[in-house]
Amino acid sequence: MTIVDPEPIFPHELRDAWPALSRDERVESFKLVPHATADDFFLSLSAPEQLELILALAPAERRTWMRLLAPDDAVDVVQAAPLEVRESLLGELDEATRREAHALLAYAEDDAGGLMNPRFARVRPEMTIDEAISYLRKQTREKVETVYYAYVLDSQQHLLGVVSLRQLFQASPGKRVDEVMRRDVVTVSEDTDQEAVSHLFSEHGFMAIPVVDGEKRMKGIVTVDDIVQVVQEEATEDIQKVGGMEALDAPYLEVGFLAMLKKRAGWLMVLFLGEMLTATAMGYFEEEIARAVVLSLFIPLIISSGGNSGSQATTLIIRSLALSEVRLRDWWLVARRELAAGLALGTILGCVGIVRILLWQGLFHSYGEHAVKVAFTVGLSLVGVVMFGTLSGSMLPFVLRRVGFDPASASAPFVATLVDVSGLVIYFTVASVILRGALL
Amino acid sequence: MTIVDPEPIFPHELRDAWPALSRDERVESFKLVPHATADDFFLSLSAPEQLELILALAPAERRTWMRLLAPDDAVDVVQAAPLEVRESLLGELDEATRREAHALLAYAEDDAGGLMNPRFARVRPEMTIDEAISYLRKQTREKVETVYYAYVLDSQQHLLGVVSLRQLFQASPGKRVDEVMRRDVVTVSEDTDQEAVSHLFSEHGFMAIPVVDGEKRMKGIVTVDDIVQVVQEEATEDIQKVGGMEALDAPYLEVGFLAMLKKRAGWLMVLFLGEMLTATAMGYFEEEIARAVVLSLFIPLIISSGGNSGSQATTLIIRSLALSEVRLRDWWLVARRELAAGLALGTILGCVGIVRILLWQGLFHSYGEHAVKVAFTVGLSLVGVVMFGTLSGSMLPFVLRRVGFDPASASAPFVATLVDVSGLVIYFTVASVILRGALL
Repeated sequence: MTIVDPEPIFPHELRDAWPALSRDERVESFKLVPHATADDFFLSLSAPEQLELILALAPAERRTWMRLLAPDDAVDVVQAAPLEVRESLLGELDEATRREAHALLAYAEDDAGGLMNPRFARVRPEMTIDEAISYLRKQTREKVETVYYAYVLDSQQHLLGVVSLRQLFQASPGKRVDEVMRRDVVTVSEDTDQEAVSHLFSEHGFMAIPVVDGEKRMKGIVTVDDIVQVVQEEATEDIQKVGGMEALDAPYLEVGFLAMLKKRAGWLMVLFLGEMLTATAMGYFEEEIARAVVLSLFIPLIISSGGNSGSQATTLIIRSLALSEVRLRDWWLVARRELAAGLALGTILGCVGIVRILLWQGLFHSYGEHAVKVAFTVGLSLVGVVMFGTLSGSMLPFVLRRVGFDPASASAPFVATLVDVSGLVIYFTVASVILRGALL
Repeated sequence: MTIVDPEPIFPHELRDAWPALSRDERVESFKLVPHATADDFFLSLSAPEQLELILALAPAERRTWMRLLAPDDAVDVVQAAPLEVRESLLGELDEATRREAHALLAYAEDDAGGLMNPRFARVRPEMTIDEAISYLRKQTREKVETVYYAYVLDSQQHLLGVVSLRQLFQASPGKRVDEVMRRDVVTVSEDTDQEAVSHLFSEHGFMAIPVVDGEKRMKGIVTVDDIVQVVQEEATEDIQKVGGMEALDAPYLEVGFLAMLKKRAGWLMVLFLGEMLTATAMGYFEEEIARAVVLSLFIPLIISSGGNSGSQATTLIIRSLALSEVRLRDWWLVARRELAAGLALGTILGCVGIVRILLWQGLFHSYGEHAVKVAFTVGLSLVGVVMFGTLSGSMLPFVLRRVGFDPASASAPFVATLVDVSGLVIYFTVASVILRGALL
């Protein structure tokens, strides 16, 4: 690429180094970005990064950068700011944008209304193709951010159809817009959840989706570039919940230590209190353990196998529900499938477990005179525990969704805890049947 | 919206019902979609769904639908097909597209080369703005899929810069393209991994990124609508690996039972063999357990607390590495942070554990004459186990990344297994110190 300035900082180089820089280094380097590309660089930053720069710059410069932002992006910056500076940031905007920003601030951040840009390209149905193209040129010269689709509106702002730029370019110049527009438009409303909006994008491969109110009056557009971010965020939230904690909502190294501790301690405590039931359960079997200490050797093996198989099942179903690959009404299908999977997986593990115990017994006489019965106790318990794991792991997300919770909260460790307690009961019940009269 | 046909199936209604339909129902309903919207509906399907329809339609119709696809999308359909029909599908394409498709088939599916579309809008640097706009109109009438950016190429196809349609529309008609184009273009090469490509999109908010070869000659573009899909897929893979299994690579209900079993049994077996070490470890402590059965009651509680805290830490770090929020060189920063977090979390759980044991002792005399010592054994062990959990859980992803594996393979259950074995050793070591002379 040709170099524009004698000693410029290349925006993409600075972008790479950005996470490693301190606030002051960021501000200093930003000042070295050549004027011609500084705008693009600034726009490529996330809202909290833009805020950091704006607050560090001289008050006279703030206005320039705030006004560079589209209304929806300006709102993101304002929302990232502490309450006491929000009004002063809004004050930097021009009158019209400030009004739009105020309206957008009223929407929840996670709804289509909070993602949408109120400025979009519009045309009238009775325009000719050539008129529409020059009208679009005029609109981009003013403030419209994206012109990939032009929305066809009547005089009351009702959405009649949509034409892509490609269609306008392909059509013969004398035709009317309403002869080439698509009428079957996929729309969302202002309170559509951002996860639902991102599904529409990944299903249809759109560049933008219009947001309409109850009377089909057009309010704005959501564009696909905002959605890539949303998809990443939603996936991160789900992964963190599957990992057994509250979603952090910010990069790991940027979250304060105490805030992070709080998000982790909460769930850890819930799981700990749940696991205390294992101590209670074990208490009931204390006598059996005293009589047959050999039984205790396999407790970690058995409960963790149940936990692992449950964690697989719950992860699969959480993700399938999130991507709408599996629906609530499929629960019975899933239950049968997971019961069969649990039987198969449990039988495999059970056989390996039996072989292991008999082998050690043959080699080292590790497990006393009743080793064969102990081996079958462990083997059979594994079948039962793994089946219980896959079944409860796969059903818990359905139950949570049914009662209105996020299935991702049925995190893998939560299932593991549930399975631990039941696993102990299964193990000692099997043992009391097989080992009665022998060890017990 | 106005209705086009008397009794049409609305594409978006059919799209919603699609997952629940059998193959035959899909083919029948597809035939009922009004001609005017059938193209859009077909293009909104995923490659395997398009393949299913194409194979089910009469051979005469196959050509129409295959030729509707852009070269990169046609390649996706061909790649979804069984080997024996691939050549016949390629045969349906026109000569030029077939050549492009053959070239694309040579790229790995997960690289930028495999995602890219070889057809893009191009202009010459010396054109005027008005010439460029009419040249773009001409290109869309032929086969170019997207015109959001036009790439400025010299006669040897070297990429000189890029202009957005918005810039062309805003500039005064008589200016030259090279006066308004951006020269500092972010590019990827054909073998850039799709995960790296998706980071560029989510960082910069681009609509498309050009793919160039070693000499900066332009080969094609990757568009953001393909990236939404990629981001979803990568997140699903990571979530499934965190859940302790191989990535399924297809929706849950569409994967064959045996294929799914194989992907789950492999990891489950690895974890099971790892957990067998707990039986070995327990074997070493068999005498201690026989003398102090009360110790065995808290085994599940202690090892699962280590597992849960390790699973939190590993999930956090896996995701942070995947999003490049944390880099390899940050390992020391993370280690200190997690050690501190482990100390804090372990102390909290330890205190709760001590209170629980003393309370039960006071109420039910559950734990014998040495209950206070047992309580402090459990409390101290919890601090040690949780610290070991957070530390090993957070470091394992770094180690795996360092030796060239995917950190997501350091799945939460894998960490839990590692922590189980070490947790037992920590617990019984603490016990042997505190309870020496009392119970042991």
